[in-house]
Amino acid sequence: MDLIQKKLLEAVAGLHEIPTGAFNIRSNGKSVERRTTEHIDILSKEDGSGIDIRVKPEVRGESVHIPVIISQSGLSEAVYNNFYIGENADVTIIAGCGIHNGGTKASQHDGIHRFFLAPGARVRYIEKHYGSGDGMGKRIMNPQTIVHIAENGYMEMETVQIKGVDSTERLTTADLDAGATLVVTERLLTHGCQSAKSTFEVALNGEGAGTHIISRSVAKEHSKQLFISRVNGNAPCSGHTECDAIIMDEASVRAVPEIAANCTDAALIHEAAIGKIAGEQIVKLMSLGLTEQQAEEQIISGFLK
Amino acid sequence: MDLIQKKLLEAVAGLHEIPTGAFNIRSNGKSVERRTTEHIDILSKEDGSGIDIRVKPEVRGESVHIPVIISQSGLSEAVYNNFYIGENADVTIIAGCGIHNGGTKASQHDGIHRFFLAPGARVRYIEKHYGSGDGMGKRIMNPQTIVHIAENGYMEMETVQIKGVDSTERLTTADLDAGATLVVTERLLTHGCQSAKSTFEVALNGEGAGTHIISRSVAKEHSKQLFISRVNGNAPCSGHTECDAIIMDEASVRAVPEIAANCTDAALIHEAAIGKIAGEQIVKLMSLGLTEQQAEEQIISGFLK
Repeated sequence: MDLIQKKLLEAVAGLHEIPTGAFNIRSNGKSVERRTTEHIDILSKEDGSGIDIRVKPEVRGESVHIPVIISQSGLSEAVYNNFYIGENADVTIIAGCGIHNGGTKASQHDGIHRFFLAPGARVRYIEKHYGSGDGMGKRIMNPQTIVHIAENGYMEMETVQIKGVDSTERLTTADLDAGATLVVTERLLTHGCQSAKSTFEVALNGEGAGTHIISRSVAKEHSKQLFISRVNGNAPCSGHTECDAIIMDEASVRAVPEIAANCTDAALIHEAAIGKIAGEQIVKLMSLGLTEQQAEEQIISGFLK
Repeated sequence: MDLIQKKLLEAVAGLHEIPTGAFNIRSNGKSVERRTTEHIDILSKEDGSGIDIRVKPEVRGESVHIPVIISQSGLSEAVYNNFYIGENADVTIIAGCGIHNGGTKASQHDGIHRFFLAPGARVRYIEKHYGSGDGMGKRIMNPQTIVHIAENGYMEMETVQIKGVDSTERLTTADLDAGATLVVTERLLTHGCQSAKSTFEVALNGEGAGTHIISRSVAKEHSKQLFISRVNGNAPCSGHTECDAIIMDEASVRAVPEIAANCTDAALIHEAAIGKIAGEQIVKLMSLGLTEQQAEEQIISGFLK
């Protein structure tokens, strides 16, 4: 692995060295390193289109790293990974994709992740996207996350698009059985002429199912963002969606959140706000000795934390 | 005018007798009475498809009543009314439609109202919809309100669908120049197998334009409601949308509010909440001696006030 690849790996997975636990590192379209453990198995699909991750029931405190890095300009791939989480297991899964494009052709990674949580299973899923390289070739990432949570399962999903992704279309769908919970925190920063679209579709199908979706985004320069969410309350359940966006320069942001109560005992709430950084906030930080730009950066980094 | 017609007139326009100011009463497809004043003119369109209401500049404190009543089963009509409000005028316009359907065929009124507010004009527009009659024929009302507000104009719109409307598709569109304001308060109650769809599209095109849209609705029994709003901030402006719905019995409600900031100085906020009446509220009122049904009715009437 060369220096660029190592840097990407650090950006998306925080990895300086071989991680503990199970892992699978995919680089330029191939699995380059893998470790399975007693409790967590990783199997390549026969057609080479991705991997199956199987976590045994009752496994607790273990982690799986599955970073993807691309440093070859013009590479385009779609990867299908399935995660089967056994009953009452409790694991952390760190995915992420880093693309370094120093060439002229677009590099693209479409990661389709399916999660099957057995009753009582708990997953913390972290996904970071990062792009670098000063070539003209675009860095494109279209992640799909399809989540099925059985009774009393719990999934927490943190997604971060740090920087340098020219175009992204994110789709997250979930269906929740009784007592299941999905918590999503999305953080998104776009700049230049980037575009980002993020869609959430959550079906609350069982009694006591609940979801909490928080999206925080910053759109700078000429970038464009579109946020779409649909929460369907089909049972006695609760849903809360929050979408806060800061716009700067010539950027634009659209938010289209939908809530649908198909059951009288569904309680659904949505909040959205789009605006620029409040002038007073900048003035206050400037009075503490920061330049206007430093003040803006500090506010944005606090907002996206 | 017979007793049924008089009752409809009272329900939709609060009129027991001939109103003061200008008015035009339309009954069963025809204008039956009209009064113009020195400052407010009402002219029938040549093709009979509606009326033009012209309010002279600087007119203040006058009112226009234009109720529509239908007591003939099977009558279906589309009426196009235009309102031209002169510079700095300040008037109240009371529209409304009542359908009594004692027959087997559907009765339908589609009212398309276009408002042209000159700079500085102010309008308070009140619109009530009401249906009665125990025939099998449906009572259908599809109002369209198209609003153009010039610089520093102000329009306040209150719409109420009281009861008895089987099907409604409401469309309200508005474009606002610099300094213009649109305030909308919508109250909607559906019951039985009724359906209601209400769409708002507001374009904030000028500096300092602002809108505040409040929708409060109650869906009972098997009724269905769909609320859609789109607020486009195309200039330094502010927009606030609120959609609160109570669902009961087997009813369902969907809310699809969209906010789009196409200008960095646009500040847009949306809030939506769908849920049932809180149990504690009912228990509290019951502890004061009300039956459960009385408690529910009191809470609903307070919510829709």
